Amino acid sequence: MRVLKLTIAYDGTRFVGWQRQAEGESIQGLIEEALARFEGAAVTLHGAGRTDAGVHALGQVASARVTFTHDVGKLTRALNAQLPDDVRVLSAEDAPPDFHARFSARAKTYCYQLRAGGVASPFDRAYVWNLPEALDVPAMQEAAAHLVGTHDFAAFRSTGTDVATTVRTITVSHLRTLAPSHPRTLAPSHLRTLAPSHPRTFAPSHPLLLYKATGTGFLRHMVRAIVGTLVEIGRGWRSPDDMAALLAGGTRAEAGATAPPHGLFLAGVDYD
Amino acid sequence: MRVLKLTIAYDGTRFVGWQRQAEGESIQGLIEEALARFEGAAVTLHGAGRTDAGVHALGQVASARVTFTHDVGKLTRALNAQLPDDVRVLSAEDAPPDFHARFSARAKTYCYQLRAGGVASPFDRAYVWNLPEALDVPAMQEAAAHLVGTHDFAAFRSTGTDVATTVRTITVSHLRTLAPSHPRTLAPSHLRTLAPSHPRTFAPSHPLLLYKATGTGFLRHMVRAIVGTLVEIGRGWRSPDDMAALLAGGTRAEAGATAPPHGLFLAGVDYD
Repeated sequence: MRVLKLTIAYDGTRFVGWQRQAEGESIQGLIEEALARFEGAAVTLHGAGRTDAGVHALGQVASARVTFTHDVGKLTRALNAQLPDDVRVLSAEDAPPDFHARFSARAKTYCYQLRAGGVASPFDRAYVWNLPEALDVPAMQEAAAHLVGTHDFAAFRSTGTDVATTVRTITVSHLRTLAPSHPRTLAPSHLRTLAPSHPRTFAPSHPLLLYKATGTGFLRHMVRAIVGTLVEIGRGWRSPDDMAALLAGGTRAEAGATAPPHGLFLAGVDYD
Repeated sequence: MRVLKLTIAYDGTRFVGWQRQAEGESIQGLIEEALARFEGAAVTLHGAGRTDAGVHALGQVASARVTFTHDVGKLTRALNAQLPDDVRVLSAEDAPPDFHARFSARAKTYCYQLRAGGVASPFDRAYVWNLPEALDVPAMQEAAAHLVGTHDFAAFRSTGTDVATTVRTITVSHLRTLAPSHPRTLAPSHLRTLAPSHPRTFAPSHPLLLYKATGTGFLRHMVRAIVGTLVEIGRGWRSPDDMAALLAGGTRAEAGATAPPHGLFLAGVDYD
């Protein structure tokens, strides 16, 4: 028996999510089918994070027990040849026999992209939550900092999910502003330089807001509920201290609306 | 009578092209319909460049004669509220009475994005022609330089199109390599920094190749035929001097295949 560790990037736009469902196409299902062709039998793939419909991944990690002996480099190329171009296997590795992508994970990092005000970009609209109004970014940054630590995140989870505990530990929670000229912004800075002599050529005039959270575990919809609450703070509907109050015994109904899935990325997973 | 000048960005993926057709959705058709709601009558919109199906624009310019008197700022917001999010009006301006987006244009700039080798990105696949093999970039750069000047571009046009002359003047024709860490690259550098502690997180290992051409006019499919020929030079199927020979009396059949539309952008249009 061999344990494979796959690192995978995907555009979640058209999928029902990472996890196989009765109806619709899932990333797990597509890769399991591709692996089954090597194995000559069904293969079960375990993902570190079960991203929802529309959520993307830069570095999802998944593990599977297989018996075939193909070289990992050849396997990566063969899997990518079989998969659609919105799913890419970045690497395949042999892992220790007790490795499990989900249970062995030490931490996961999620990122969420927003832009507030200005004309939305036709080129990154599938990856950014565009809001028409300006937001109070310092208030959102103050609120984001409250989340670091070990807290009961019951106010920030999908209602109706059943988990043993809603206590989680968050080690990173911050919101950064990336100016349109910042090298880390998505399409804009690149596209602007395509036509430097055309000042009205598309280049968003408003900065990208990038929320990043690293933690040992996340509840379902937790990052999107946090981002939705941060946006309500940015709109002035709530104060930054609301975040601390929500962590000290708030209910889901008291927190903000769930942000849309398309701004969210599972950025990476850490192992020992 | 009032002449409006609109600057427009769009993701051409799902359209039949800029121009209105008997079947399918066009960018021209969508904006004409939106303008007709203000005018209370049909409006004809003239675009500077008639981009084909799948081709994008960062700064298409279009003009229309109208009689309504709405303020241009209000008009921009109202048009964007009516248009789908893959088409954005960047600005609306009042232009001189003799302004015509196509006939008044002094120069147009097109850009084409390619990546050669490595794993293709799930996030920019709609905007980059990904080629599996490495290319001889210096040979392509040498060939691209041959195009600057006034030449007969008969070898680089769509067959079956009827134009008075196939002579055009090109002032800029160059191919640049943007390293994955270059601030002008699309998603990659941004996405990499989302998860700096995850070395295997998605970040293309191969540079983006950016071909840029500025000229007084372009024949139909001309930039895509040039890029297709540059790629055949990059593959070693042809020598860079082939480009000069094609300009000195080559036929369309002698030049390279037409590159796919999705790497091409109408970057901007210059007026006096």
